[in-house]
Amino acid sequence: MKLKVSIIGASGYTGGELLRLLLFHPNVEVNQVTSESYTGKFVYKIHPNLRKSTMLKFSSANELQPCDLLFLCLPHNRSQNKIDEFKKLAPKIIDLSADFRLKDVNEYEKWYGHKHARPDLLNDFVYGIPELHRTEMKKTNYISSAGCNATATILGLYPLYKNNLVELDRTVIEVKVGSSEGGNKGNEGSHHPERANVVRSYQPTQHRHTAEMLQELSFGQKLAIHFSATAIDMVRGLLATCHVFLKNDLQEKDIWKIYRDAYGNEPFIRIVKESEGIYRYPEPKLLIGTNYCDIGFKKDEFSNRLVVISAIDNLMKGAAGQALQAFNLMNGFDERTGLEFPGLHPI
Amino acid sequence: MKLKVSIIGASGYTGGELLRLLLFHPNVEVNQVTSESYTGKFVYKIHPNLRKSTMLKFSSANELQPCDLLFLCLPHNRSQNKIDEFKKLAPKIIDLSADFRLKDVNEYEKWYGHKHARPDLLNDFVYGIPELHRTEMKKTNYISSAGCNATATILGLYPLYKNNLVELDRTVIEVKVGSSEGGNKGNEGSHHPERANVVRSYQPTQHRHTAEMLQELSFGQKLAIHFSATAIDMVRGLLATCHVFLKNDLQEKDIWKIYRDAYGNEPFIRIVKESEGIYRYPEPKLLIGTNYCDIGFKKDEFSNRLVVISAIDNLMKGAAGQALQAFNLMNGFDERTGLEFPGLHPI
Amino acid sequence: MKLKVSIIGASGYTGGELLRLLLFHPNVEVNQVTSESYTGKFVYKIHPNLRKSTMLKFSSANELQPCDLLFLCLPHNRSQNKIDEFKKLAPKIIDLSADFRLKDVNEYEKWYGHKHARPDLLNDFVYGIPELHRTEMKKTNYISSAGCNATATILGLYPLYKNNLVELDRTVIEVKVGSSEGGNKGNEGSHHPERANVVRSYQPTQHRHTAEMLQELSFGQKLAIHFSATAIDMVRGLLATCHVFLKNDLQEKDIWKIYRDAYGNEPFIRIVKESEGIYRYPEPKLLIGTNYCDIGFKKDEFSNRLVVISAIDNLMKGAAGQALQAFNLMNGFDERTGLEFPGLHPI
Amino acid sequence: MKLKVSIIGASGYTGGELLRLLLFHPNVEVNQVTSESYTGKFVYKIHPNLRKSTMLKFSSANELQPCDLLFLCLPHNRSQNKIDEFKKLAPKIIDLSADFRLKDVNEYEKWYGHKHARPDLLNDFVYGIPELHRTEMKKTNYISSAGCNATATILGLYPLYKNNLVELDRTVIEVKVGSSEGGNKGNEGSHHPERANVVRSYQPTQHRHTAEMLQELSFGQKLAIHFSATAIDMVRGLLATCHVFLKNDLQEKDIWKIYRDAYGNEPFIRIVKESEGIYRYPEPKLLIGTNYCDIGFKKDEFSNRLVVISAIDNLMKGAAGQALQAFNLMNGFDERTGLEFPGLHPI
Repeated sequence: MKLKVSIIGASGYTGGELLRLLLFHPNVEVNQVTSESYTGKFVYKIHPNLRKSTMLKFSSANELQPCDLLFLCLPHNRSQNKIDEFKKLAPKIIDLSADFRLKDVNEYEKWYGHKHARPDLLNDFVYGIPELHRTEMKKTNYISSAGCNATATILGLYPLYKNNLVELDRTVIEVKVGSSEGGNKGNEGSHHPERANVVRSYQPTQHRHTAEMLQELSFGQKLAIHFSATAIDMVRGLLATCHVFLKNDLQEKDIWKIYRDAYGNEPFIRIVKESEGIYRYPEPKLLIGTNYCDIGFKKDEFSNRLVVISAIDNLMKGAAGQALQAFNLMNGFDERTGLEFPGLHPI
Repeated sequence: MKLKVSIIGASGYTGGELLRLLLFHPNVEVNQVTSESYTGKFVYKIHPNLRKSTMLKFSSANELQPCDLLFLCLPHNRSQNKIDEFKKLAPKIIDLSADFRLKDVNEYEKWYGHKHARPDLLNDFVYGIPELHRTEMKKTNYISSAGCNATATILGLYPLYKNNLVELDRTVIEVKVGSSEGGNKGNEGSHHPERANVVRSYQPTQHRHTAEMLQELSFGQKLAIHFSATAIDMVRGLLATCHVFLKNDLQEKDIWKIYRDAYGNEPFIRIVKESEGIYRYPEPKLLIGTNYCDIGFKKDEFSNRLVVISAIDNLMKGAAGQALQAFNLMNGFDERTGLEFPGLHPI
Repeated sequence: MKLKVSIIGASGYTGGELLRLLLFHPNVEVNQVTSESYTGKFVYKIHPNLRKSTMLKFSSANELQPCDLLFLCLPHNRSQNKIDEFKKLAPKIIDLSADFRLKDVNEYEKWYGHKHARPDLLNDFVYGIPELHRTEMKKTNYISSAGCNATATILGLYPLYKNNLVELDRTVIEVKVGSSEGGNKGNEGSHHPERANVVRSYQPTQHRHTAEMLQELSFGQKLAIHFSATAIDMVRGLLATCHVFLKNDLQEKDIWKIYRDAYGNEPFIRIVKESEGIYRYPEPKLLIGTNYCDIGFKKDEFSNRLVVISAIDNLMKGAAGQALQAFNLMNGFDERTGLEFPGLHPI
Repeated sequence: MKLKVSIIGASGYTGGELLRLLLFHPNVEVNQVTSESYTGKFVYKIHPNLRKSTMLKFSSANELQPCDLLFLCLPHNRSQNKIDEFKKLAPKIIDLSADFRLKDVNEYEKWYGHKHARPDLLNDFVYGIPELHRTEMKKTNYISSAGCNATATILGLYPLYKNNLVELDRTVIEVKVGSSEGGNKGNEGSHHPERANVVRSYQPTQHRHTAEMLQELSFGQKLAIHFSATAIDMVRGLLATCHVFLKNDLQEKDIWKIYRDAYGNEPFIRIVKESEGIYRYPEPKLLIGTNYCDIGFKKDEFSNRLVVISAIDNLMKGAAGQALQAFNLMNGFDERTGLEFPGLHPI
């Protein structure tokens, strides 16, 4: 028996990536995928990697039929306005936008700068990082998938904050991101001669994903996260370099233990920290197409700084892959189903 | 029941790629993988994409045990000197080097510039492009996998030459290649500041793969292939732009028919030729990690020139993927087993 | 005494590059630069490399004052419709568009697909490659700067065609180009996630620059040029790989002599052909920012094919640099003035 | 009258860049350039951008003749052992290595991990950032050029530290660097298939350039600089993202004033901070080949963090260009001589 699944907003990068995964998932039948711009067109015209993998065509959202589960891949600020419609179509929903990530409506309005349409529903959605919310995911019907920058950062720092090891107001995070994070709509800045070769400080402060980090890492305490994002000449991939300051005098072997305790059984987390070779720390290019989050760290010998390095594929563990992992948990499948691709080398 | 398989020379890019595929093949048990430089080391230290996928270690070739099938991923001019040893270890062999590709020893010596050690065995090996030699592959115990430039070019032009449509002495082929084609050993020219951003005419004439093209496309006639290879700033991927001159006045719809007749049922060939959109012709980046060969064409309106465009991932359809496809045929498995990855977009 | 010079259409890549050069030319005073979209804005807002180099603002074309010389950097099919206006403003004109490159109006209409507005003026413009038309440039008031693909190809092949050494119908040319060739206006295909990493067959046949090659290389004979252009992941730079077939049995030393005779005294042509080292043939990245055209070649030992390799910076020798070189000749300045930048290594 | 200048260690990237600049400097005659590996070879064989610019050959250091000024471009830990020899050859020396940058021998030994051979000379060398030490440079005979990471960081933060505006122990700096920073010698990690597409945490802690930052920014106070360096897929260029925490409640207009006061008359510093357009903050690609340091900043609205962004070309303002700027000051030339190249767009 296969679950009948539809994707709303399937012409974008996240929707396309999710469709790719679902087409090869043994327990899924892709029912409909929607796009208003491309209604009636073969999906492989827009996602050319799917040539010969599917003869599916885009539907309009108006033509949606009931199904077992809906994935929402709409731009931000759409799901919250149409959520009642969507709930009528399917008993289970996984939303990949930011609309239901934050539980505190004040935080939402502070970071997003407008009123939330449905604050009453915020607590119905489980925040979509399985490593933090696995138990809840198994019981819920609503999941809000996490932001890519938030995912890498939160997974990198979670064991430290959970164990209350970090000075609360000093953490600085620098994320390096690729161009696919900006979506499939071009703009002046995404024109290749302008975007190629850049090291562009596109969001030095006030990045919205910071709110997710604060929510998931606070554990009831007040903390500050000083976050910046820099765009580099890369399509997929994300590396978060997190500078945290330790309250106590921990050695690298202590840190090792903390990460092993937290993540030792996680199928999609790898601790990457080697004393030799080329790939001593996490490297996003090795993760292209995979659902891994690789995490490494280095203790500063001259201070209490710990540098935590965390890498993902922003469209996989940072979006579609993580949503599928959550889908697997929500529906009782093996968490790894459809996410077996190990990544390539060299690439 | 799984086949016990070993790889000789598994620390290089081709061997690593093959190992990745074999680890996920449902009918294969990887027995041993050898490397003289890394004997005793975990393979994931050298192929970091395999972290968490395998705890296998490299063996020395001296420690090889008998198995069902041996893959040879040695540098050229090694297999031919050790082939008797290898035959003792396994009843079936797939060689990924150039040693047994050419059937005419004179051609070998012309293009490789030295004596062949075992000309007596040249005809025991089936030339490793399944689309041309599928029937023979099902019966043989020895396959010599094709060169990457040769694979893209031969698959692109085979329907035209087979149907005798091409002027025999005029074909010009320009191949654009990535840096992984040069293998995992660094040299002065592969140092990043020198190799990045290049459009390097690394082999304007006399490329050895030309001999394979002549062998597979001649059909008993004397022909010339004017081949050049240019290295660009790319790791994986290969695009062959083939300029052929048609004997007769064919229209594009005729060409379409010829390609459909030849390849309509091929699982790993896609005819890519669209009148709109961004990806109108084959594009190697869409093939990264896949076993596809995408083929397109454009007829010159002002002359009898037909431009045939053929793209592959040089490490997959140009090496490890194609070898696995041949392996599947040789052993009676579905040809597509272990080669289902559809490729990514965007990338 | 400085010449007062204005640029019409200065917000594009070619206009911006030309402005950069003119600002540092000792015999030039830049009078006005026009842009209808950015009228009144500082030019450094659009060309950020010119921050601190100039406080010039864009004017509207309507505000143009008389000057000594006008550069036209308009999109194709504009100059021919406004040429009378422009002639009233300045006694000398250098047009960087394609409008006045072809001398035969039938060829223009064949390749450009529409009527030419001013066929009567076609012969008033000198075709803008100084190495071929230096004497005429010194006497004319009108120059039509050559296309980038045409420049690299023509300079690469001119000595061979002029000496009647080449089979007339067999030449195949493959040009590899960067994204700046497409100009500064974005489109679906120039969006970074789509344009990055490509090897895109964007014009396999019927490229308009072919007409310029035929015009400049025919020497009264009928010939064919089989041209293709492939876009790669590069912003600036162009490499033409030209496959010609020699009528006679020439050796490489003969070819050397022919190129030395043709170009021995040329300030902007370098013969690049080395037997060792990394940069044995022309390499566009070494030419970024320079006005050089580097030319190399390799004779096929197995046939009469000669591969000629020619590299330029498409915005310099392929556009603004060559226009300035022509400007220097037209006005009696040292041909090299303002074009001294030697290029960078590594880059 | 021209100064006779020689370069010791001219086959590397820094030496080659310096030679390029000196060849076009109107007050310089390049006397000799040394390389032990390439003695007797034309320099253009190693620095192919200099083809047609010079017929100079490499000499051995043993063949050095007296000259007016020596540039030392040796690997670290060489100059300090040969300095007496060099002083005999020339009355003035500019050392581009790290040997004489630190004034406190204890700091040198802490960061470099070995004894300094000539601590007695440390105070004879002026630290080589002209914007901080212009007056001393005009009087000295010995300059030690600054490290590239140090230059970008120090110039970015100098006005803030000098005015005592920064919390002393909280600054975190993340530098993104290209592959040319590693020099011209290849290693396993610089092999193109491994180095391409990386976001590599090559020095998360303990980078030696930190010592220079501490020296130049302390102004007698004890401070901490938490520095990390990440290598990205770029050849030239460096972006420092500096997170500082302000002691007082300063607004962006206050910060503007502080930077204008510090750098308003500096020929090679540009404050880059725009509210619209693509290039709102410093961008290293616009600086390729130039001697500029572009500096921008953004105040966090939710905290006292100020993000300062500083960009240079690591081989120019980070090495050869800055050394030439210092040379100009030392010898009474206009500081900008030979450093006029404004940079390219697009690139």
